[in-house]
Amino acid sequence: MVGLGPGNADLLCPRAAAALAACRHLVGYGGYLQQLDLAADKTIHASALGAEVERARRALELAAAGHRVALVSSGDPGIYAMGAVVLEQIDRALADDERHPWGLVPLELVPGVSAMQAAAAAGGALLGHDFCAISLSDLLTAWEQIERRIRCAAEGDFVVAFYNPVSRRRRWQIERARDLLLAARPADTPTLVGHNLERPGGSHSIIRLADLCAARLDMFSLVLVGASTSRLVRCGSASRAYTPRGYAGSGAGAGGGGL
Amino acid sequence: MVGLGPGNADLLCPRAAAALAACRHLVGYGGYLQQLDLAADKTIHASALGAEVERARRALELAAAGHRVALVSSGDPGIYAMGAVVLEQIDRALADDERHPWGLVPLELVPGVSAMQAAAAAGGALLGHDFCAISLSDLLTAWEQIERRIRCAAEGDFVVAFYNPVSRRRRWQIERARDLLLAARPADTPTLVGHNLERPGGSHSIIRLADLCAARLDMFSLVLVGASTSRLVRCGSASRAYTPRGYAGSGAGAGGGGL
Repeated sequence: MVGLGPGNADLLCPRAAAALAACRHLVGYGGYLQQLDLAADKTIHASALGAEVERARRALELAAAGHRVALVSSGDPGIYAMGAVVLEQIDRALADDERHPWGLVPLELVPGVSAMQAAAAAGGALLGHDFCAISLSDLLTAWEQIERRIRCAAEGDFVVAFYNPVSRRRRWQIERARDLLLAARPADTPTLVGHNLERPGGSHSIIRLADLCAARLDMFSLVLVGASTSRLVRCGSASRAYTPRGYAGSGAGAGGGGL
Repeated sequence: MVGLGPGNADLLCPRAAAALAACRHLVGYGGYLQQLDLAADKTIHASALGAEVERARRALELAAAGHRVALVSSGDPGIYAMGAVVLEQIDRALADDERHPWGLVPLELVPGVSAMQAAAAAGGALLGHDFCAISLSDLLTAWEQIERRIRCAAEGDFVVAFYNPVSRRRRWQIERARDLLLAARPADTPTLVGHNLERPGGSHSIIRLADLCAARLDMFSLVLVGASTSRLVRCGSASRAYTPRGYAGSGAGAGGGGL
């Protein structure tokens, strides 16, 4: 399970590059596999976005047959990605048959830089203090559970990274999330919208929380909402958003603050 | 602001290596600078653990004087590290004097793999679904605020990464955190204790939440507590802990579960 990082090759760790080099079989989303600079002797098993279970089972079948297989994820395979999908498939196989060969496949997870880290880095240091990550995908999680987590994040004044903020059909959820957070933090809380970061055409912008809306987002977006203590500082021509360590540290006076 | 990753050189991103190569001046904690394989022409500004503000100001002074400076952090400088400290120092300087030269220093933050990612990868995929990160350091944050966040993490059933779980003087906090989480999730919730991961002598173990105690930890430890849905699966001779995506996905039957 190999993490490619957020996109640009210079954020792919040497351990991940070595794993890709050592494996004959590569399994993953076709769009990401295409972007890799691979040796000619690879067998590529490309699949569509969203076919995670199928991809994990394909990789496990190849590995159980004795092949060295790299199952690739963008970002970190341990964060909302293939790592948990693979372990869940093994767990289920062993529940049916405790001697299932998938239980004996040697596994290694190679971590990588996740999208929230690329977004935070591009816009400052919003993850500088306590934060949480919430996926707004309601394919496998009931909305009530997601909303409960957002309420707790609001109550705890966590910086929040929203993964999967919208999809073609999922539009109102990020605006509901915004409203739940607005009940507990200021309208001008610095909010970072990253789009295709570290990929060609990538961009980010820092907006007010109150201005966050689905129309700004697509399936390649990530949203970071600051905590009540997060601040904006103007560095030359660019604004940077950051979250200071702790509360006692927020005595910077009138120079910074919200947008 | 350059992230070295969790320790091992093969988890240091090429972008970070290029930044270190391009900078004549390196500022950071001496223990981490020592571990780097550096060219001979570098000027090293090493400081003690904990002297973050001094380190940030040193780097800003050098940069404002026209030098190219790499301020290094282990892990990701954007996560509980030097990124926010630097921006806070600039913010304060500009609050006193809006034409302060620190406001014009060109900044770049190079992200890296953080300790929670290395720990999750070593032990499975505990960060596979919604999670939060909480620092137990009460140097700059009142314990009441930290405890409020832990309560919210418990209420929201987040996987929790505890950074700075103990120090020489700070011992009871991680056990109080354990008890707050135990009020809302099972005693046998898979809990990962990582120690010096990706460094020489590093190790990890998976324990029951109820067995988490300060005696197992030191300043180089990181703790990951699973959510109520997190599960353990036996892969060959090793146990792996993971958090399945969503709640609907947790139908693996009697084969997995807690410890």
